[in-house]
Amino acid sequence: MAKTKKKSKLKIIPLGGLGEIGKNMTVMEYEDDIIVIDCGLSFPDEDMLGVDLVIPDMTYLEENFDRIRGFVITHGHEDHIGAVPYALQKFDCPVYGSKFTLALIEHKLEEHKIKNADLRCVVAGDTVELGCFKIEFIKVGHSIAGALAVAVTTPVGVVIHTGDFKVDYTPIDNEPIDLARFASYGTKGVLALMMDSTNAELPGSTPSEMELGRTFEEVFDRVKGRVIVASFASNVYRIQQIADVAVAHGRVLCFQGRSMVMIMRIAMELGYLKIPEESIVEVEKLQKYSDNEVCVFTTGSQGESMSGLFRMANANHRLNIGKGDTVVISASAIPGNEKAVGKVINQLFQRGANVVYDRLADVHVSGHARREELKLMMRVIKPKFFIPVHGEARHLHHHALLAQELGISPDNVFVMDTGSVLELSSRSCKLTGSVTSGNVLVDGSGVGDVGSAVLKERRLLSHDGMFAIVIAIKRSTGELAAEPEIISKGFVFTKDSEELLDEAKTVAKEMSLAFAASDKTEWGNIKNTIRSGIKSCLYSRTKRTPLIMPIFIEVD
Amino acid sequence: MAKTKKKSKLKIIPLGGLGEIGKNMTVMEYEDDIIVIDCGLSFPDEDMLGVDLVIPDMTYLEENFDRIRGFVITHGHEDHIGAVPYALQKFDCPVYGSKFTLALIEHKLEEHKIKNADLRCVVAGDTVELGCFKIEFIKVGHSIAGALAVAVTTPVGVVIHTGDFKVDYTPIDNEPIDLARFASYGTKGVLALMMDSTNAELPGSTPSEMELGRTFEEVFDRVKGRVIVASFASNVYRIQQIADVAVAHGRVLCFQGRSMVMIMRIAMELGYLKIPEESIVEVEKLQKYSDNEVCVFTTGSQGESMSGLFRMANANHRLNIGKGDTVVISASAIPGNEKAVGKVINQLFQRGANVVYDRLADVHVSGHARREELKLMMRVIKPKFFIPVHGEARHLHHHALLAQELGISPDNVFVMDTGSVLELSSRSCKLTGSVTSGNVLVDGSGVGDVGSAVLKERRLLSHDGMFAIVIAIKRSTGELAAEPEIISKGFVFTKDSEELLDEAKTVAKEMSLAFAASDKTEWGNIKNTIRSGIKSCLYSRTKRTPLIMPIFIEVD
Repeated sequence: MAKTKKKSKLKIIPLGGLGEIGKNMTVMEYEDDIIVIDCGLSFPDEDMLGVDLVIPDMTYLEENFDRIRGFVITHGHEDHIGAVPYALQKFDCPVYGSKFTLALIEHKLEEHKIKNADLRCVVAGDTVELGCFKIEFIKVGHSIAGALAVAVTTPVGVVIHTGDFKVDYTPIDNEPIDLARFASYGTKGVLALMMDSTNAELPGSTPSEMELGRTFEEVFDRVKGRVIVASFASNVYRIQQIADVAVAHGRVLCFQGRSMVMIMRIAMELGYLKIPEESIVEVEKLQKYSDNEVCVFTTGSQGESMSGLFRMANANHRLNIGKGDTVVISASAIPGNEKAVGKVINQLFQRGANVVYDRLADVHVSGHARREELKLMMRVIKPKFFIPVHGEARHLHHHALLAQELGISPDNVFVMDTGSVLELSSRSCKLTGSVTSGNVLVDGSGVGDVGSAVLKERRLLSHDGMFAIVIAIKRSTGELAAEPEIISKGFVFTKDSEELLDEAKTVAKEMSLAFAASDKTEWGNIKNTIRSGIKSCLYSRTKRTPLIMPIFIEVD
Repeated sequence: MAKTKKKSKLKIIPLGGLGEIGKNMTVMEYEDDIIVIDCGLSFPDEDMLGVDLVIPDMTYLEENFDRIRGFVITHGHEDHIGAVPYALQKFDCPVYGSKFTLALIEHKLEEHKIKNADLRCVVAGDTVELGCFKIEFIKVGHSIAGALAVAVTTPVGVVIHTGDFKVDYTPIDNEPIDLARFASYGTKGVLALMMDSTNAELPGSTPSEMELGRTFEEVFDRVKGRVIVASFASNVYRIQQIADVAVAHGRVLCFQGRSMVMIMRIAMELGYLKIPEESIVEVEKLQKYSDNEVCVFTTGSQGESMSGLFRMANANHRLNIGKGDTVVISASAIPGNEKAVGKVINQLFQRGANVVYDRLADVHVSGHARREELKLMMRVIKPKFFIPVHGEARHLHHHALLAQELGISPDNVFVMDTGSVLELSSRSCKLTGSVTSGNVLVDGSGVGDVGSAVLKERRLLSHDGMFAIVIAIKRSTGELAAEPEIISKGFVFTKDSEELLDEAKTVAKEMSLAFAASDKTEWGNIKNTIRSGIKSCLYSRTKRTPLIMPIFIEVD
């Protein structure tokens, strides 16, 4: 088939993850075959009021649903798997990933009551064929178990997508990144490299996960009371490391927080996490142990208000934290969460606990490669074309410059936007257009029904509240059928503001008299006049602009 | 008088700035005399929806207004002067501060239309007497011109309050912190030291402002196009440094952004900022210069959405930023602003500009002392009692521990809360109680009228919007007088959701029939039933919980 249509091109179309850290999703397309790499969500920006999560706009895939051969998932972080349930509601096709990745996806599908999904487990070194694409999975290091890069052999050449990764020579599972495999592709020739840009601003190399061991040893050597560790539940290596130290120091382990408990169970069942069964204790039995025999693992490293740590810090958990306790926050704040994390730390100090966090000690390392690691990968993979992915504009920009510093021609480096289409032949590569793409907001059970109009209303409501005035008019005469009724929320404390409300009511009432005196065709104008009359009455008194809703009801 | 009442104590009562970085305000009280050190505001937390700013609860001062001898302001940052207009609306007393501090206060008072304030200018070395208090002003370094510490001689001993400070041996104005004066007090004996805790977590010393010079030289040596600098307007030293380099590189200067223009004018008038008149160019005349002859200073280093930089980055300013421009963000993000700053940086890269920011280059130093500087101050001042101030719980905690490491007995170190009362004699110091204190929220022209009830409503409204259903009933019969009317905002996009709205309307209508069939005393119950009926109808269909407002209007 490829022979008859000599001019076919490979298309690479990111539907998310470019210009943002979040909702990663990349389409690769050649003739009748489409594969999708990753299928993630992002968390809403602070201006997306009330929104639960954000998934990629999949219109393009819906239009081409019959050509999708499968989803290929690099690892189990939310920004890579979070939209899988939404995708599988639309598309009936297999999903490939490592054992741990699929276990996390399976849990998600259960929550969404999706059954009979076609999940296909792979290990590093496996190759699967999806249409014309041959996909090899390659081991990489990252802050989650079971992370894999993919090398996709296409009719026009090999495209390597690193997924999220770091180069860790001493990983906790002792299975370092398979540099030889990348090098082998590099030696044979790689058409294009798509590489994680998260840390492209940062010089040097990200320290090994192993290097945190010393800090944890020190903490457990020194501390007499309980130790409470807050960490990302999916960072199984981190948990393993700390658990090993805790057990060696004669402590039992107790897991708290919904996702922590869930992921630990999965990780132990699958053999990713190895903890002696007798070291794990349910919270009910903790009181049998003295404080220096206890280590609690909990969610909440980002200061989330429903998390275990938050509730323990706010006297709202059966394991309330207090004097004598040491809390280790083994994570760094994701941008936007700094203030929430700071608040939890303050709360813990106020309760008399000691807190060990990234500002004070080496309790966290990133899961993403820094500049020296990125250079290493570029040197062994030696791609013809380079596409920085998984980053905001600033990260993509610096990653692109880095590639140029290593001798890749600026013409061969492509900083893409979500939705843009890159077409590659074995020799050429160019941006040729774009497809429908963007954010689809999920709020409650609604997917995509909250748009800019609704968000604008929420923003207005959140700022100064609302002010409704109900005016009932007799249909026949235009006379008032009752006193105007006022309902205000989030505007003023009504008990203290009766005078103001009365004033607004009087304004409305006086203006409403115009209804009776005028023709029905004029009523629209009168309504507008009443709205602006109330608006200026309220603004002059309060300098606030609530959402004003005059409600007219005509009665018989 | 002090002789007859031997047992009088000095009271120190912080009304803000403890357990927070913001709204600094400290009351010192001895018998009939009260002085107030600083009078600042804070910016609202993200959960204070719609709130403009936060000032300290001044109830205690209102109750003791006739004893207030004056306000003493250490420097002109918002968290030290922002509440002055609100205080002067209540209290008629003098305000002391440096020339620059008072100029900034004066500007504020003009905006609040407050006239005839009694502002009294001091310079380092001056001593003023306020009642029984003798206050000497001592030069310190900080990220604003005109910063002063105060040494307050009270009937029971000397209390030193550092204000915000750093130890900068090579400040831009060549007037370093007056260590000798602090040492002189230390030698004679200091009862208590209240010291800035902002950087008490950080080891070493904060670098000198001077050390940034090299970075700025490098930038201007290298860059060919326009340079746009975003910085805090009040950091006159920073502006001076960059302006000097820009002028030396043959560039003219243009100031943009309301507060930047205002503060530069004041700083030049007062002689804090020295720039040759001919180097300053109005924006209208910039086009006469080629790009490499231009340096623009603007507000917006925190990513504020109305600021100069934000508008330049979003094509909403006459100086739109694009390819060839270099933007220097000479500031670091204040906690909570990280995401907004990141967005502006991304936007600038997307427009093709080069951006130099703190992650990449030494373009900012803090204005607050780190641990080595704090130790230096403790060693020269040698206080009997130590009170860390100006910090969140975490900062106060570490500052208190630091004092203990330097040999101050834990019993003599007091980590205070806002509102708590510390009583000192020449030998003793103890916490004895508390006074009314807290946050007063300012929203529009309302001061303190937005409380937790209103904020809760705003939070609910922001999350899922509101849903009002108006039901008009005939007073005499309880029959519906009209079709129920629905108004929803921020809940669903109404055009797409007619079916849902109709369903809710039907639910309400059917339930409303109960009015006619029942006694008037039952109507309250019926209303509640309708409310919860609509709530569950909407939740089952959308999994959202808008604020539901059934509005009943009885007509004749």
